[in-house]
Amino acid sequence: MTSTQTQVTSVDADLSPLVAVVMGSDSDLQTLTPAIEVLEKFKVTFEVRVLSAHRTPLEMIQFAQEAESKNLKVIIAGAGGAAHLPGMIASLTTLPVIGVPVQSKALSGIDSMHSILQMPGGIPVATVAIGGGLNAGLLAAQILATSDSELRAQISHYRQKLRNQVIEKDHLLIKLGAKNYLRHIQKGGQS
Amino acid sequence: MTSTQTQVTSVDADLSPLVAVVMGSDSDLQTLTPAIEVLEKFKVTFEVRVLSAHRTPLEMIQFAQEAESKNLKVIIAGAGGAAHLPGMIASLTTLPVIGVPVQSKALSGIDSMHSILQMPGGIPVATVAIGGGLNAGLLAAQILATSDSELRAQISHYRQKLRNQVIEKDHLLIKLGAKNYLRHIQKGGQS
Amino acid sequence: MTSTQTQVTSVDADLSPLVAVVMGSDSDLQTLTPAIEVLEKFKVTFEVRVLSAHRTPLEMIQFAQEAESKNLKVIIAGAGGAAHLPGMIASLTTLPVIGVPVQSKALSGIDSMHSILQMPGGIPVATVAIGGGLNAGLLAAQILATSDSELRAQISHYRQKLRNQVIEKDHLLIKLGAKNYLRHIQKGGQS
Amino acid sequence: MTSTQTQVTSVDADLSPLVAVVMGSDSDLQTLTPAIEVLEKFKVTFEVRVLSAHRTPLEMIQFAQEAESKNLKVIIAGAGGAAHLPGMIASLTTLPVIGVPVQSKALSGIDSMHSILQMPGGIPVATVAIGGGLNAGLLAAQILATSDSELRAQISHYRQKLRNQVIEKDHLLIKLGAKNYLRHIQKGGQS
Amino acid sequence: MTSTQTQVTSVDADLSPLVAVVMGSDSDLQTLTPAIEVLEKFKVTFEVRVLSAHRTPLEMIQFAQEAESKNLKVIIAGAGGAAHLPGMIASLTTLPVIGVPVQSKALSGIDSMHSILQMPGGIPVATVAIGGGLNAGLLAAQILATSDSELRAQISHYRQKLRNQVIEKDHLLIKLGAKNYLRHIQKGGQS
Amino acid sequence: MTSTQTQVTSVDADLSPLVAVVMGSDSDLQTLTPAIEVLEKFKVTFEVRVLSAHRTPLEMIQFAQEAESKNLKVIIAGAGGAAHLPGMIASLTTLPVIGVPVQSKALSGIDSMHSILQMPGGIPVATVAIGGGLNAGLLAAQILATSDSELRAQISHYRQKLRNQVIEKDHLLIKLGAKNYLRHIQKGGQS
Amino acid sequence: MTSTQTQVTSVDADLSPLVAVVMGSDSDLQTLTPAIEVLEKFKVTFEVRVLSAHRTPLEMIQFAQEAESKNLKVIIAGAGGAAHLPGMIASLTTLPVIGVPVQSKALSGIDSMHSILQMPGGIPVATVAIGGGLNAGLLAAQILATSDSELRAQISHYRQKLRNQVIEKDHLLIKLGAKNYLRHIQKGGQS
Amino acid sequence: MTSTQTQVTSVDADLSPLVAVVMGSDSDLQTLTPAIEVLEKFKVTFEVRVLSAHRTPLEMIQFAQEAESKNLKVIIAGAGGAAHLPGMIASLTTLPVIGVPVQSKALSGIDSMHSILQMPGGIPVATVAIGGGLNAGLLAAQILATSDSELRAQISHYRQKLRNQVIEKDHLLIKLGAKNYLRHIQKGGQS
Repeated sequence: MTSTQTQVTSVDADLSPLVAVVMGSDSDLQTLTPAIEVLEKFKVTFEVRVLSAHRTPLEMIQFAQEAESKNLKVIIAGAGGAAHLPGMIASLTTLPVIGVPVQSKALSGIDSMHSILQMPGGIPVATVAIGGGLNAGLLAAQILATSDSELRAQISHYRQKLRNQVIEKDHLLIKLGAKNYLRHIQKGGQS
Repeated sequence: MTSTQTQVTSVDADLSPLVAVVMGSDSDLQTLTPAIEVLEKFKVTFEVRVLSAHRTPLEMIQFAQEAESKNLKVIIAGAGGAAHLPGMIASLTTLPVIGVPVQSKALSGIDSMHSILQMPGGIPVATVAIGGGLNAGLLAAQILATSDSELRAQISHYRQKLRNQVIEKDHLLIKLGAKNYLRHIQKGGQS
Repeated sequence: MTSTQTQVTSVDADLSPLVAVVMGSDSDLQTLTPAIEVLEKFKVTFEVRVLSAHRTPLEMIQFAQEAESKNLKVIIAGAGGAAHLPGMIASLTTLPVIGVPVQSKALSGIDSMHSILQMPGGIPVATVAIGGGLNAGLLAAQILATSDSELRAQISHYRQKLRNQVIEKDHLLIKLGAKNYLRHIQKGGQS
Repeated sequence: MTSTQTQVTSVDADLSPLVAVVMGSDSDLQTLTPAIEVLEKFKVTFEVRVLSAHRTPLEMIQFAQEAESKNLKVIIAGAGGAAHLPGMIASLTTLPVIGVPVQSKALSGIDSMHSILQMPGGIPVATVAIGGGLNAGLLAAQILATSDSELRAQISHYRQKLRNQVIEKDHLLIKLGAKNYLRHIQKGGQS
Repeated sequence: MTSTQTQVTSVDADLSPLVAVVMGSDSDLQTLTPAIEVLEKFKVTFEVRVLSAHRTPLEMIQFAQEAESKNLKVIIAGAGGAAHLPGMIASLTTLPVIGVPVQSKALSGIDSMHSILQMPGGIPVATVAIGGGLNAGLLAAQILATSDSELRAQISHYRQKLRNQVIEKDHLLIKLGAKNYLRHIQKGGQS
Repeated sequence: MTSTQTQVTSVDADLSPLVAVVMGSDSDLQTLTPAIEVLEKFKVTFEVRVLSAHRTPLEMIQFAQEAESKNLKVIIAGAGGAAHLPGMIASLTTLPVIGVPVQSKALSGIDSMHSILQMPGGIPVATVAIGGGLNAGLLAAQILATSDSELRAQISHYRQKLRNQVIEKDHLLIKLGAKNYLRHIQKGGQS
Repeated sequence: MTSTQTQVTSVDADLSPLVAVVMGSDSDLQTLTPAIEVLEKFKVTFEVRVLSAHRTPLEMIQFAQEAESKNLKVIIAGAGGAAHLPGMIASLTTLPVIGVPVQSKALSGIDSMHSILQMPGGIPVATVAIGGGLNAGLLAAQILATSDSELRAQISHYRQKLRNQVIEKDHLLIKLGAKNYLRHIQKGGQS
Repeated sequence: MTSTQTQVTSVDADLSPLVAVVMGSDSDLQTLTPAIEVLEKFKVTFEVRVLSAHRTPLEMIQFAQEAESKNLKVIIAGAGGAAHLPGMIASLTTLPVIGVPVQSKALSGIDSMHSILQMPGGIPVATVAIGGGLNAGLLAAQILATSDSELRAQISHYRQKLRNQVIEKDHLLIKLGAKNYLRHIQKGGQS
């Protein structure tokens, strides 16, 4: 089976996806790519969809209503501007929905942030930072890891690597001094 | 009696409603009451509904999908916070949808304004001011008046009355002088 | 040839315009071009004007006062910064006025949005998103369609095309996988 | 008695007004009262008007167009929300127009501030702080004082009094100590 | 009795807590009470703690580091102003952390929202609305329900009740009409 | 040659300057250049200074204190960021001070706008739009014109030219149609 | 008695003040009282002054210029709105200046925060939170403690007390449970 | 060689550092470089570290806890986004902590500013402008100068140089006139 087939939404794949990564427009894909990559790194199965709350509302509704029966466990939804996608999916499923405000043109994602975050009592959306695709993927993994100790170990390992990268930079900065280090990273070095 | 007839709240019940006034929560009713009152004043038939995009998404969807076939012409939708109701209804009908951002607790309606106004290309919502229930009702009437010259005359008459009220205040202010006028309106006078 | 005919920019010049697209400065034309194009697509007659609330107030006033008698049905007005044009036209006609906040230099259109949206009770402006020229055109068409079933059918058809475009992108994304799809759209593909 | 004389609210009625204090709604009068009081204190003649850019646009236009020929020298205009009054008057006269953003309900006057301040090149409005009625009156006086040395002397005297009030408070604070002074002003003392 | 048992506040004290509800100050307790109540309703075990990122940093660190080994599954953290608590706990555990921005005095929770939401890549916080204690509790339950079908059924039931409440209000509004309904809810009725 | 004469930058050097154009940093000069140009166009004498409220406070104080005795009539002061220059000069003179908020790097001039506009009661600054150098120059001229009918005639003439430019664009747009006009201005045409 | 002695408000009057607490208006005194109280608690000598950047600029300048020679070590300056006081004092002394943005009426202190914080390169103001009088006093003490180990010990002791208060609340919350604790603090208990 | 010695970056390595310049990510180094350069200019010893509140929390904690015993006197901490670093260090030491909000991608540093500035009562952070690295360095020096008269003299000298630069620009502007000066600085001249 090819990796492309793995990503297919099929109900019959022998590893059905645990996470769906959906976006309101394919222009949001770049923001969500780090979520996809971190799920791949953790070997968490996922599907990726373009579903517009406003242009394909019925497809979005069907997706959200079927999500649980397809054995999805977590949904990541990214959108910009009015950004209704995460909240509307959340209204149609009891799966945890992670919302990613996409940076918008005029308002830099403040509109997206408000639309995704300020959900009414009863229907939460787990919102991450504006443009926070990576953290959406990590949060999905952390949620799955509440019942998957192997995945938790992978996340701990990932954290350890983040930590080590900062420690290495700290050591290099001490070694080179600030001016040389600045030159180093401006040349495309280890930052 | 059919369910459609039940929903009619207009003063002239044998006509089906032309305008629907919907709100995400009954706590929004106070904001929308001026819309209802101005429609009554103009004898525009209407129905009033509580439909939550997040708590009753399926009812909202059904309402929006049936709106055109029920001969509704304009939909006024008020909501606060994430405020997805106006935009989601707009995504499910081609009727003009007027959105009223309801003043919210923490963000004073800035969140509602962003969620309602910043719709993506393809699906407009005609947004009025935060808390602008009256203007939503007037805008609905102005839209209907594009093909109803009698209604247009009523709106012109209404405008004339607004104008006269300001002119009367202006004359009274000139007559009393600023200090006396201020005392006059602070006692609950003609302001 | 009468001056009215001169102003007609529609593809079907023997009909007087139903929609006026006015702007405070010709630097707003790019923002309003999608409104013009969608009206053309729907064969809605229109005229296009540069009328500054601040530099040509008398011309603006004359335009607004004559709009109804010229058989205009809807006015689209775009402006940036203090952006008084939509509200001032609205104060001088009972036709529905659609306001388009143009993205401004220092404040990204937040100033335009406030000036256009926050109209006082009595004088509504149907505001669309910052930079929302396309939606202004669509909203004008939706308003006209409240009494024009053929136009409504065209709008439904347009919506269906929007929907199909998203569905095609969704299918292509499923087929190619996220990484290949991202490469595809970065090369200028079907996004 | 001519209508112009009727409008004169100044303490010295045989002089035509030099300053007009206009407001979009009589609910703005409280904000503008300090402007009126300071003009009275300086014996600057003035008139006070309610003129709504949106509800009485034609009256506003007439006022602005006649302002110069009536020998007005400065116009103070206060408005809230969309707050088009100062800018529209400015577009119709070359007299200096001082704009006072009135604190609005939902947006605390941020909308008023943007609408009044962010005027396009060519048509300035001299904007003062949100709710800054007193400063509008003082600025009008300072403008008139550019050609009236007696008025300038009055303004200098007023400034000196402001200065002395602060110096007295400073001395009292030093004398009483901070705790006693705080009790003093909380009892309605000299603050 | 061990200290862990002491901290258990759940209705079923022989089970160790699955959720911790922590707050930066006991003045945040009112905001978090709806989270506590909904966890009780779902019989999800929990503990409640006051842990200040700034006043008791070492206690906060110890709590976060021990959270996983104590078999906690989800942490809800509420804080206002600089609001570092959710993000700092998230940096010290791989458990999912839900952040609740508490409405602050000067900035209405915009500061809290920014501090909690805008986490750097690598360390997500699942942020809910300003003052969104209820949704924090529900989100915690939805996360636990990804591996607990009985809990998921309870959440579905809860959603159904929310839905029914709105439907009942909608029916009552249709029955009473808008004016009577408004009077009804203003008298403390079913809203 | 006296130092005062040295400072005169006007085209007519034997007249002492009526207007001072001061800025907190020479990086603000570009923003203030349109003010300078419009004063030159109107043959209003002026001087231009760099005076930093924070780096040269004593020079700024001396300038402000001597302004009146040097026969200056109006001061234009531009500054960015904390932008204390306009307000501090205003505190040290009774001449009208026009403040120009310069667009700042991080906050786009919102900080400058707040610092210049939000002056306390007693000390007004006549604030113009962010980056509004041109309007500062025009407002200075309008203030001087309150006692100079020839200058007022020039300003009226300037306004007429602005009006004619818009009218010409309007006519050209009608003649060319929107698409051709857009091409025309994108090629650097008459916009 | 010299004027310097008069100004000393410290508990130990034979020492000259190390800290000055100045404010732009005596309405700011309530915000600064916690600074005064914490300096008293730490037996740091101080003086308290009302000095308005705009109403008493010359007094403010004199104060700032003499500060160093009077052996002041740190200046705390609180102001609201345009809030130029901290920055202007900072421009006239090399002593560290701590700025306290006072919550303003219309803009909640956002204007004060911008004016105090956004100082240009060369002239820092150490800004604390909006309304942060207590932290201004503590920061002054921490600065003095860089060369006063006894004062540092007092600050450490103060921190320890803050820590203990939170720990006691945490323990009481665990003991009482969340509901009882909430009742406890709502009755005016230990919060 | 001990690790403490390794960390010393000062020009005079046999002295332990008085100031630490820490940053949450090496991408903040460019913002902090002016702080480093001004400390070097004043021959204040310092060390530079990369310490992430979120990626290396334990290293950050250790650093903050040891800071005082290592004889550090002042800590400069720069961070962007959620920007918890300055506040968390401040919670773990009684040394004065200077916070530098780094300009962030989506929110331009408004998020950083809120997170750093809005600290709760008890734990101050001396915040400087967004991107204000230079002022952080100067403020650190001013704090050290409260007990180091030689350093104070250097700071006074630095201020004098700033003043002279502005005075020279002012003189050159007077000499060249505004247009020539603008050309001069646009060619990379003395600005």
